[in-house]
Amino acid sequence: MRIILDAMGTDHAPRSEVAGALEALKELDSDVEIVLVGDRDTIEAEFLQHDEIPDRLSIHHAPDRVTPEESPSKVIRRNPESSLVVGLKLHRDGTGHAFVSAGSTGAVMATSLFTLRALPGVDRPSLATTLPSAGAPVLLLDAGANVDCKPHHLVQFAHLGNIYAQDMMGRSDPRIALLNIGEEPGKGDELTSGTYRLLRRETGLNFVGNVEGRDIIKDVCDVVVCDGFVGNVLLKFYESVAEFIIGLVEAERVGKADDGLDLDHAFRVLDYAETGGAPLLGVGGVSVICHGESPPKAIRNALALAAKAVRSDMVRHSAQEVALALGPSSREAS
Amino acid sequence: MRIILDAMGTDHAPRSEVAGALEALKELDSDVEIVLVGDRDTIEAEFLQHDEIPDRLSIHHAPDRVTPEESPSKVIRRNPESSLVVGLKLHRDGTGHAFVSAGSTGAVMATSLFTLRALPGVDRPSLATTLPSAGAPVLLLDAGANVDCKPHHLVQFAHLGNIYAQDMMGRSDPRIALLNIGEEPGKGDELTSGTYRLLRRETGLNFVGNVEGRDIIKDVCDVVVCDGFVGNVLLKFYESVAEFIIGLVEAERVGKADDGLDLDHAFRVLDYAETGGAPLLGVGGVSVICHGESPPKAIRNALALAAKAVRSDMVRHSAQEVALALGPSSREAS
Repeated sequence: MRIILDAMGTDHAPRSEVAGALEALKELDSDVEIVLVGDRDTIEAEFLQHDEIPDRLSIHHAPDRVTPEESPSKVIRRNPESSLVVGLKLHRDGTGHAFVSAGSTGAVMATSLFTLRALPGVDRPSLATTLPSAGAPVLLLDAGANVDCKPHHLVQFAHLGNIYAQDMMGRSDPRIALLNIGEEPGKGDELTSGTYRLLRRETGLNFVGNVEGRDIIKDVCDVVVCDGFVGNVLLKFYESVAEFIIGLVEAERVGKADDGLDLDHAFRVLDYAETGGAPLLGVGGVSVICHGESPPKAIRNALALAAKAVRSDMVRHSAQEVALALGPSSREAS
Repeated sequence: MRIILDAMGTDHAPRSEVAGALEALKELDSDVEIVLVGDRDTIEAEFLQHDEIPDRLSIHHAPDRVTPEESPSKVIRRNPESSLVVGLKLHRDGTGHAFVSAGSTGAVMATSLFTLRALPGVDRPSLATTLPSAGAPVLLLDAGANVDCKPHHLVQFAHLGNIYAQDMMGRSDPRIALLNIGEEPGKGDELTSGTYRLLRRETGLNFVGNVEGRDIIKDVCDVVVCDGFVGNVLLKFYESVAEFIIGLVEAERVGKADDGLDLDHAFRVLDYAETGGAPLLGVGGVSVICHGESPPKAIRNALALAAKAVRSDMVRHSAQEVALALGPSSREAS
């Protein structure tokens, strides 16, 4: 298996990418190779910081780099020689089996969509993210790829999340919930009340109904479906609330004797680097998107996520399920 | 000053209401009276739990009580003898200067709107709430009164929040931000990109632009404006994330020697009872809505909030500002 890693994505690229790839190779099965895509000289210079570079880590030269200022939708035409576009094409052409990038989320999403194409039956691929929770992590989608959604888009997210939760998170018969402002069926805005009506009669989904903001992380569901605006706000808010509360605890400890608390252990579950990256679901390939500030650990975990997606044949499984649930013949019903 | 308190709002009414009113009377100025509205026998029975009932606490009998099952919009017609409807009418008729209730949020909002009416220029009164933050608390509105908003509704929320932040939170020239999924002007969904265009040219507001989920509680603004769906989800999510993280810390402490940490102190800022209640802004009166599970402390603080709103003449100030900013003559422009 060969994973394509955009070497020029993080803020301090390619430092995190090279270190993360080396860490990943130590842990992943020996048939996994990683191809770093980016400026060869820059990557080779970074190699010098490490004692040994295994054969399983190679470089594919791409002279250009996408900057955050680029309009996401124009990258594919304006930056054909960028590590992002070159890397995604290596995946599309079959040279690599998955793609990982910590470049600008908008650019990676748009270019993934242009390059890998949406699966038949999927109008809008969706960015999925996992939230730390009282139980096992909860899958939230859409996390920002799609705003101004219609009910049938949220139904598609539900199917994509359903497959991801099974193949990647080990959940059998995942509980799918709709994020809403009340639990009762009629609650919500136009989007959610309309989505509820569709999800209720959707077959092949274990739809458990509405879930409110207060219940998302209370282990009442495995997958939470929402519009990308709400999902994106929530995801970012979660990080900042966690940071804020950790700060409150830290402030209380200042100047006190060693209290023996291992808060790093307590808060490990909140560390986004543990998850590594967010997959773009519903495209014809594996595309995992990382934070721009990803440390090596996050890159390593994103590579592991990508490897797992390839190993579980997630894309083919998604294509089958989606064709069944959302394909042309099923469309008549909705 | 006379504050009307719905005695039958909390889950264990009138226990919290009576205890909270007694606490409030100890702290508020001696010209403040509180009128408990509800079943006289039930309230008098609760009085027996307390040593002394001051003259400033009285009862106004209302035999009926609104249950959570009632459709909010029908309460005014179906439950005319309820503590909620009777209490709000006492406020409207001038017998009381403010109204506080821990009844079902939807019912209190709808009945407040029917009874007190929206201020001229306000299409949709808005529920405001304060979020604990790294700096002073941030006012978030709408927190759930309005879903499916249009840009001009969010502009109205901005004006209502602007006045509240000045009169009630002591902020001069409050920084008004729009909750969005990116900081740049063009970002967002139809609602937020349209709202941004209106707010940018709105006079009389210190509009500081878009704010992302991660920045809400980072002291970059005093007021955050959003659709009631997003606001409601966020508000409830905040509470559960705080609870979850506190739980992580507590779990780490289990079985350890006394570590001398005063986490109650650290987390006091997160206690919703400290805030007490959420005001409904943009109606022709003071209506403060509390959690159904409010402890006496929350009721006490909601009564203090109501007293402060009366003292600062918030409603008249709001009416003036709103007429200026949103009245018929200003409407032409938007």
